Amino acid sequence: MGKQTKDRINLTDAFWGEKRTLIREKVLPYQWRALNDQIPDADPSYCIHNFKEAVRVTEKRNRGEEIPVQSVRDFVSLPEGNALLPADETEGSEEAHFYGFVFQDSDLYKWIEAVSYIVETEQDETLERTVDEMVDLLEKVITKEGYLDIFYIIKDYDSRFTNLRDHHELYCFGHLTEAAVAYYDATGKDKLLKLAMQFADYLCEYFGPGEGQCHGYPGHELAEMALMRLYQCTGRKQYMELARYFVLQRGCAPKYFNREHGEPEENNLDYYQADKPVMKQKEAVGHAVRAMYLYCGMTDLARERCDREMGQVVRELWEDVTTKKMYITGAVGGTHIGEAFSYAYDLPADSAYAETCAAIGLVFWAHRMLQLEADSKYADVMERALYNGVLSGISLDGTRFFYVNPLEVDPIACRRDQRLSHVKSRRAKWFGCACCPPNLARLLGSLPHYSYHTKEDTVWLDLYMSGEIDTVLHEKNVSIKTDSALPWKASVSVEVTGQDGIFGTIALRIPEWSSAFTPTVICEGKYETRVEAGYWYVTFYGQTKATLHPGFAMEPQFYRANSRVRESFGRQALVCGPLVYCLEEQDNGKGLHTLVAEPEAASRARQTSLFFINEDAVGYEIPGWRKEPEDTGLYIKASRKEEWEPVTLHFIPYYAWANREEGEMRVWIGQRERN
Amino acid sequence: MGKQTKDRINLTDAFWGEKRTLIREKVLPYQWRALNDQIPDADPSYCIHNFKEAVRVTEKRNRGEEIPVQSVRDFVSLPEGNALLPADETEGSEEAHFYGFVFQDSDLYKWIEAVSYIVETEQDETLERTVDEMVDLLEKVITKEGYLDIFYIIKDYDSRFTNLRDHHELYCFGHLTEAAVAYYDATGKDKLLKLAMQFADYLCEYFGPGEGQCHGYPGHELAEMALMRLYQCTGRKQYMELARYFVLQRGCAPKYFNREHGEPEENNLDYYQADKPVMKQKEAVGHAVRAMYLYCGMTDLARERCDREMGQVVRELWEDVTTKKMYITGAVGGTHIGEAFSYAYDLPADSAYAETCAAIGLVFWAHRMLQLEADSKYADVMERALYNGVLSGISLDGTRFFYVNPLEVDPIACRRDQRLSHVKSRRAKWFGCACCPPNLARLLGSLPHYSYHTKEDTVWLDLYMSGEIDTVLHEKNVSIKTDSALPWKASVSVEVTGQDGIFGTIALRIPEWSSAFTPTVICEGKYETRVEAGYWYVTFYGQTKATLHPGFAMEPQFYRANSRVRESFGRQALVCGPLVYCLEEQDNGKGLHTLVAEPEAASRARQTSLFFINEDAVGYEIPGWRKEPEDTGLYIKASRKEEWEPVTLHFIPYYAWANREEGEMRVWIGQRERN
Repeated sequence: MGKQTKDRINLTDAFWGEKRTLIREKVLPYQWRALNDQIPDADPSYCIHNFKEAVRVTEKRNRGEEIPVQSVRDFVSLPEGNALLPADETEGSEEAHFYGFVFQDSDLYKWIEAVSYIVETEQDETLERTVDEMVDLLEKVITKEGYLDIFYIIKDYDSRFTNLRDHHELYCFGHLTEAAVAYYDATGKDKLLKLAMQFADYLCEYFGPGEGQCHGYPGHELAEMALMRLYQCTGRKQYMELARYFVLQRGCAPKYFNREHGEPEENNLDYYQADKPVMKQKEAVGHAVRAMYLYCGMTDLARERCDREMGQVVRELWEDVTTKKMYITGAVGGTHIGEAFSYAYDLPADSAYAETCAAIGLVFWAHRMLQLEADSKYADVMERALYNGVLSGISLDGTRFFYVNPLEVDPIACRRDQRLSHVKSRRAKWFGCACCPPNLARLLGSLPHYSYHTKEDTVWLDLYMSGEIDTVLHEKNVSIKTDSALPWKASVSVEVTGQDGIFGTIALRIPEWSSAFTPTVICEGKYETRVEAGYWYVTFYGQTKATLHPGFAMEPQFYRANSRVRESFGRQALVCGPLVYCLEEQDNGKGLHTLVAEPEAASRARQTSLFFINEDAVGYEIPGWRKEPEDTGLYIKASRKEEWEPVTLHFIPYYAWANREEGEMRVWIGQRERN
Repeated sequence: MGKQTKDRINLTDAFWGEKRTLIREKVLPYQWRALNDQIPDADPSYCIHNFKEAVRVTEKRNRGEEIPVQSVRDFVSLPEGNALLPADETEGSEEAHFYGFVFQDSDLYKWIEAVSYIVETEQDETLERTVDEMVDLLEKVITKEGYLDIFYIIKDYDSRFTNLRDHHELYCFGHLTEAAVAYYDATGKDKLLKLAMQFADYLCEYFGPGEGQCHGYPGHELAEMALMRLYQCTGRKQYMELARYFVLQRGCAPKYFNREHGEPEENNLDYYQADKPVMKQKEAVGHAVRAMYLYCGMTDLARERCDREMGQVVRELWEDVTTKKMYITGAVGGTHIGEAFSYAYDLPADSAYAETCAAIGLVFWAHRMLQLEADSKYADVMERALYNGVLSGISLDGTRFFYVNPLEVDPIACRRDQRLSHVKSRRAKWFGCACCPPNLARLLGSLPHYSYHTKEDTVWLDLYMSGEIDTVLHEKNVSIKTDSALPWKASVSVEVTGQDGIFGTIALRIPEWSSAFTPTVICEGKYETRVEAGYWYVTFYGQTKATLHPGFAMEPQFYRANSRVRESFGRQALVCGPLVYCLEEQDNGKGLHTLVAEPEAASRARQTSLFFINEDAVGYEIPGWRKEPEDTGLYIKASRKEEWEPVTLHFIPYYAWANREEGEMRVWIGQRERN
């Protein structure tokens, strides 16, 4: 088992605690119903149906009964409008039925992983029993080889691993494994872990550089980081070796995916990050979620194997993503074409894809980069993504989800402009391809793990969440209690106690947004402090108690984008602490694009209460102007004086948009120069 | 024959005369080669091939030989990469071959029409002989019923008129007819006219409200206006009646196109302007070229039949198009999805479709609206479209063409952003669907006809082009000689002479762009003047000579868009007289979006010479600023002072962009407020 899971973490944070409670009380039960196709008017999942069908099929086959096999090589997803047959009709039928996307298994695994993070700290017999029942079911289905992908088990077992590029067996394996490790860590139950290891052992045999082995790698990355986690949990090196094989084999000539599909060598593979060997990849390309998961696996490898060269590659990729291809909300993947990274500085606000899962992937990656090198820039991005591009994916009540997270929405444009058909102005109950909702659940469930990291005798506090971490420094128990009023106030203090003495270093991140840093340490005896790479390090020599006040300050500020970002030129976005703010039509009327403010106006901001979010939530009122539409004429001589009406701009946190009336929303607003 | 064609027009205009010479000397010979697939590396047309093949097939059939018929109901165009068989292979083969789009015929007809306008004033035996040869060929192909659409004649004659929605028989008929009338007007040769009348007579029999008749109408409008022209030329009322039937039947329940395709009634037909009866259409929707041609036909009907109700409908549609859906260049059809009108005020610059043919259609329509009611607003739009959105469609040398006319181009974005895949940064040699190039040729060839219109004893000068119009006022010959230095200088004067006395009114348009109007009349005796609806009317009572100096003035001015246009908010475009200007990378460096100017800076503009256009061409240098890209950081606190470098902005006419090095181009530039 990895180091962090030895720690005991108790989250008491008002903001994130509420989200975690939401996950436990609302989101997980809701998603369970979704996986069972019990949400009225929502796209069906078919997920649990498929698992049950796999049991039926397996049992029939075990009885020697024949079930027709279907050629599935080119199957990707259920044709639209093809409804699930009622269970009773399916029961008796000869054919084996699989519905939904080929990777539908993964939604259950993500759900199990999310449940794990909840039951890690809170008793929930219902949730745990449901997981155990599903694990029993999986045990019935896994093949004698150790293979466990429902689509191929139901449809055409002999064709497994024949379409690594488009099908998602290794992706499903990845989520199975993440769930298995998380559930084991949380409960000590190892049945699911053993299934994952069986599958992993089979993969170690099947894939590799050896002669009879398959030289392929996952079409949708994830297995890499999952194998690393399995290695950390079990200590079995072969899992790390397979992760390394998958990573290094990727994009090497001859290109596996081209051979697999009989396509010419020059065929474009950057969608899969498989156009060139990963060690030669300097720019983030292709499907954003896949890229994030690949980079996570690479970062894990760089850290575990102290691989400086690979460390350098992920650093360069990090720079590319975060200085050229990331929205101010921490969202990544600007174009809906291929759900992909666009070229450098192409960050359109209205047609943004900015998939929730991609922002989640960026959080995963940032967390890993921090463990590779403690530089606060990684935590700044992690925080930005978490509070904005991730959190916007879920409604305040936990039952509606965004797949796409634009920074500018006009419902009329979404409805009438087919170029924006991927952009929705309301969150949906569920999706046919529902990768995002359970991904949100597992990230928000496990959030305390992202608040800090440790290495040797240092604990880095990367995100500030109220709560207590019980860890070990120099073989002595230490408790770190954080009090944080974020994101509504910058007040942060950290109390460190160790009955047997604190021997080691506590490092507090100095957030990029903080306009002040006036640190004080309250403790007896000698201690040392230094600031390095955005962290304030405080080293103790045996004290039993210390209180750290970093003295952060935050206030609303306008940010502008680098002028290379054409789409945001002449515009600004309001940021306060970790939160990006936006305007909604409900508070500001129609035509949000006609609202402007001076950059300095942010200093005259007045706080407002946002009860639709919660009692603590803070909005801002900032003086600005509205340009009234001209009465006549489409084009007007610019020498005609423009009419500006002074108005108050009402900002709310971006993550909370689309929780009231449907309407326009806008993050980037016009910048008016000082007069 | 219509009234205008009685007039003799002699164009001597430096600007448009050069274009017309280009059409005669370069464009028509070039396009003839294109129609014959003789342009290396260009998309083949197959147009003439198909006509020749039709002769071969017809002759074989006449000899009683059988040629296999192919079911063509769903055929729309040649599959990509399907090359033309070499002529000799085709010759001997049993099958009948048609290549390219189903409407490929129309390209020849547009070419013939363009030739007609040239030979109307200039001898050109080569061009005329080529037309005559093609007419002989058409005579061989027309069926005994009078049907003349090559696709169906070659492929499946019995299936004619079974897919009015997607196939273009009535569209091809329209172009045949326009060509026939133009060629007859120009040369007096009536062979082609008779073929068109034969086809029209067949249509009059086939379509109509009667029991055994087909109740359909054209999928791509054009036949309506062509039938009106044929009526004006021949005086045969049945052609007007059929035009009226096509117009009024359109969109009536039950919807013909739905029935034709067995589709449900609610199926969306606005692409075809067939979602509701035209008299209830208040908003321009769907495919922009189709819409323009429909509105032309409606305007013709309103005028010829003094139909006030229809006049009101086209007026409302005009307002919708020109005050909500038109680019500043006079281009229309903002979205490439369906080559269509987007919703009101949705006028994106970079992803603009703005098809050359749609701007041409707007010129046609404006010319007709002027004849319905003499209001200079129609001529202002006609002029704007002509000098900008139309003219940008053809390179200065006449051999390259734009189908799409964006107002902002970054070649990198065009190549890397699939959302902009329809936008090209260089003009093409030809297109598989080559509607635009021959459409340009016929408009530019016939341009003098658009410079004025007459009604009773008034002549309205709508566009100013140097030249002479010999017309008749009150049964007396009058010559109107215009001297114009447009678009480079505002100097315009008009000399009217009539040996038998001028009895009537000359109306000079006062252009919207003119910042001055200080009219003088030089003539003896009594005359009257008045200004109405943007025209300066001067009425004469028998003078033999008069000179009119309207005293226009023009200077470069920035225009802004109505603030409802989100995409242009905070931006401005330079306009001088009829010309819209733009910035090109070649003169201004990369990153054109970082260039800004004060609205008043236009008053400090300095003229420059643009020899790459011609010796008279004028560009402008205007003081502005460039924002240097920030060295570091994707998002920067807006309180950090912005660095602006004073620069000189070099503007060239929009129509002349993309005639030098490939690079960025931009019409809408940042507006910086006065400091």
